[in-house]
Amino acid sequence: MPRKRQAQACEDSIVAFLKRNFSGTAVSLKMGIGDDAAVFRPRGAQELWVVTTDLLLENIDFRRGWLTPAQVGHKSLAVNLSDLAAMGARPRFHTVTLGLPNDLGRSWMASFYRGMTLLGDRLGTVLIGGDLSKSPHGLLISISALGESLHRRLVYRSGAIPGDLLFVSGTLGPSAAGLRLLEVGKLRGESNPERLALHAHRQPEPRCEAGLWLAQSGMVSCMMDLSDGLSSDLPRLCAASGTGAEIYTEKLPVLARSTAWGCDPLALALNGGEDFELLFAVPEKHARSFRAKYPRRFPQVTQIGRLLQGSAVVCRPHAGGPSKPLPALGFDHFRPIP
Amino acid sequence: MPRKRQAQACEDSIVAFLKRNFSGTAVSLKMGIGDDAAVFRPRGAQELWVVTTDLLLENIDFRRGWLTPAQVGHKSLAVNLSDLAAMGARPRFHTVTLGLPNDLGRSWMASFYRGMTLLGDRLGTVLIGGDLSKSPHGLLISISALGESLHRRLVYRSGAIPGDLLFVSGTLGPSAAGLRLLEVGKLRGESNPERLALHAHRQPEPRCEAGLWLAQSGMVSCMMDLSDGLSSDLPRLCAASGTGAEIYTEKLPVLARSTAWGCDPLALALNGGEDFELLFAVPEKHARSFRAKYPRRFPQVTQIGRLLQGSAVVCRPHAGGPSKPLPALGFDHFRPIP
Repeated sequence: MPRKRQAQACEDSIVAFLKRNFSGTAVSLKMGIGDDAAVFRPRGAQELWVVTTDLLLENIDFRRGWLTPAQVGHKSLAVNLSDLAAMGARPRFHTVTLGLPNDLGRSWMASFYRGMTLLGDRLGTVLIGGDLSKSPHGLLISISALGESLHRRLVYRSGAIPGDLLFVSGTLGPSAAGLRLLEVGKLRGESNPERLALHAHRQPEPRCEAGLWLAQSGMVSCMMDLSDGLSSDLPRLCAASGTGAEIYTEKLPVLARSTAWGCDPLALALNGGEDFELLFAVPEKHARSFRAKYPRRFPQVTQIGRLLQGSAVVCRPHAGGPSKPLPALGFDHFRPIP
Repeated sequence: MPRKRQAQACEDSIVAFLKRNFSGTAVSLKMGIGDDAAVFRPRGAQELWVVTTDLLLENIDFRRGWLTPAQVGHKSLAVNLSDLAAMGARPRFHTVTLGLPNDLGRSWMASFYRGMTLLGDRLGTVLIGGDLSKSPHGLLISISALGESLHRRLVYRSGAIPGDLLFVSGTLGPSAAGLRLLEVGKLRGESNPERLALHAHRQPEPRCEAGLWLAQSGMVSCMMDLSDGLSSDLPRLCAASGTGAEIYTEKLPVLARSTAWGCDPLALALNGGEDFELLFAVPEKHARSFRAKYPRRFPQVTQIGRLLQGSAVVCRPHAGGPSKPLPALGFDHFRPIP
């Protein structure tokens, strides 16, 4: 679960180190380490194939007391499918590796896989394998997902240029707001915003349909999913595209009513993490057409800023307002604890 | 690491439960849960693609004090590539997910990935992604590997019929014999058999070249890799092919000289696990041709028995000798401790 620590993107530096030293090339490989997912084209295949993998550890990424087994199953698949959504790929297959503590037996597993399969069936992915082990220290879940492009159109983190408009889908911060409720022992919501926040935390919906549409539209220059928080993820998008960015805090689609349980909606929108919404850029020339054509049945999208020359990532209250740096306070496993 | 417990194949029953309840179908899916790896054919692709995944947990699957970081890297990729070898697939891509304890930093990771990359480069697979997390309770490694068929020829666990001859590659038991040395504190071998056993345990060689040749030969009716021990793995092959089997204990290619450090070579060959050799069947009509054509540069192969009618798996000292049941005493994470 996301926790704020001192600003320094250590995980990114490890990924860069691995990419520099241990990534290889292959004719069929289109994208290796460093995007939401890897992309390859099997020889002769009509489509590009996309691979992603995510690890969830008990008491770091989730608590069993706060999620039902079915919700753990849903969420652990959802975080992987969100990576596929961020490329514009269609989910196809997934493998599930479990390290199981002694107290989890057949009935826990049945509920876990049932929750996962409900989501997987709905979004078109099939369980094709995995590995099972006893785990002496808590539940661990490692999932890999495979997706397929449509008409070979995928969107990467790179590809945007300064001036492109920056959008997000949905609302930012509900998952972290839900986590705050759980942390104070509130396992059931008593109001609509509370229920919404708890649901966002427990059963995030990967934006596969919207991601596919965005990739097909031809109007999106770069895209990623928001897993660690906007303040940590946006600099990654900028680094990949070689741009800076400004975001307008007054425009962020926050969960304003989370103030009712003591949250700072803006801070959660910037740093909360686990929203699994899409962050993407649209060149200004497509902006009008994009707004007109984006389907209303999909989660709302909001323009939250703009990509800039340089590498600085800043926030302003609104376009043209005074700027402040945007420190990366999202989740990072490897940031030193102050 | 393999440990003997009461005979009852609990992991198999969980896999069967998952297959029965949670596996799906898709046009492009050729093999889902239940073989060494899953197989799919991307639309239009020339070849079949193969996916496998394996989890290694510190103090269950390996001890850090017994393997260098490079050996941990080698071995964790090797166990995955062995699954691809068992299908006759060529390794192409792999993802690596690490849960890292606090005491493992950049230099440990560099050695780990270097050991892995040495093996990966040699066998043709490229690191394309992964996930990183802190782990509060020991190192965990979850790898997924993707392989590609050649001329769409793969070999499954199913496909054999009664009467087919049963072969293994290499020697059975050295890895477990190496583990015995480590368990008594012998980290360096003092004789050739000791060095061989330690090497087999620390840096198993996946039989990719031999597996590919066997699949291409058209003379092999079924195949799997030996990861949990012959007594546990052979019944899986038989169940998939719908046959029984007899093995000839006098014919097993054991590490006889492991008696020098108190091992029972036959018991280790049957139940030791982690040999990562290939177990496969050859129809009798191909036997002569197979023996003549199998390349001498590959690991030796030995006929160790024969598939039979029915479902019983038995051992005899030699063909026609008195038979005994072969209890599954190989490694099973989920077998109840007596």
